[in-house]
Amino acid sequence: MSAAITYTLTPIGVVRSSLTQRDEAPMQGSEGAPDAWLDVTPNLVAGLDGLVVGQAIIVVTWLHQARRDVLQVHPRGDQKMPLSGVFATRSPDRPNPLGLHRVQILEIAGSKLKVGPLEAIDGTPIVDIKPVLAESADS
Amino acid sequence: MSAAITYTLTPIGVVRSSLTQRDEAPMQGSEGAPDAWLDVTPNLVAGLDGLVVGQAIIVVTWLHQARRDVLQVHPRGDQKMPLSGVFATRSPDRPNPLGLHRVQILEIAGSKLKVGPLEAIDGTPIVDIKPVLAESADS
Repeated sequence: MSAAITYTLTPIGVVRSSLTQRDEAPMQGSEGAPDAWLDVTPNLVAGLDGLVVGQAIIVVTWLHQARRDVLQVHPRGDQKMPLSGVFATRSPDRPNPLGLHRVQILEIAGSKLKVGPLEAIDGTPIVDIKPVLAESADS
Repeated sequence: MSAAITYTLTPIGVVRSSLTQRDEAPMQGSEGAPDAWLDVTPNLVAGLDGLVVGQAIIVVTWLHQARRDVLQVHPRGDQKMPLSGVFATRSPDRPNPLGLHRVQILEIAGSKLKVGPLEAIDGTPIVDIKPVLAESADS
C-alpha cells in the first residue's frame, strides 16, 4: 500500500468531556455516556451557521488512541464472541479509526456546541459535523 | 492552522459505479441512485468477515472532487436558499470532505461488495465501512 494515494484530515475541533480514559468510556453514546462540548476551531464558526438547539447531528471523530493494524476483533471486547472483521463492528480499532456519533445539540455558544450523549473521550479530534437527514433519521 | 496536528487517511477501497460525473449524481442515495460495487483492497478482506447480504451498512467515503475551503453553501445548490454553514448541510464541499452513505449489501464476492443505492461516483475512495446499529437504526 506504500504507493497508495492518501488524504490528510485536519481536525475542525476537539471534544471536551468528563471522560478521560478509553477504558471508562461506554461503547455507545446510548449506554450511559455524558454530555460533552464540541470545541470547534473559532475560524470555522461560519460553518456552524444554521445548526439549532434540539437538532440531531452526526459528529465524526478521529479515534486517536485506536490501533490501525487490526482487521479482526472480538465484538464488544468479549473474548467469548468469535472474531469478526472490524468492518462488521463498531470497534475503534480499524484501518481508518473514524468514529460516528449521533448526538443532540443541547446548547450553542459561539464556536462551542454542547451535545449529548457522547462516548468519545476528552481530547478526541473532531473531523466533521453533519445534520441527520429527516427523510431517513439516519446518517 | 499550519501547526495543527493532521491525520492520514488511507483508502480501504474504491467505489465502482455507473455514475461518472459529480453533476449527474443524485444528492442522496434515496434520490434515485444506482447500485454500485465497493471494491475493497484484497489484503483487507479479513476485515469484511461477518458482513452478510441484506445487512444495512454505513459506507464512509472521501469525496475527492470536493472543495475544502468552503464554509457556507446554498443548501442543495439552490441559489434561492439562504447561505448555510456546511456543517448544517450534507454538502460535499467542507473542510474534511467525508461522505456518509447508508446502503444495503446486495451481494458479496470476496473483497467486493455490491451495495445500493449509492450516490457516490465511480472512483470515489472508500475509507471505512460500519454496520448500522440495530438499537437506533442510524449511524
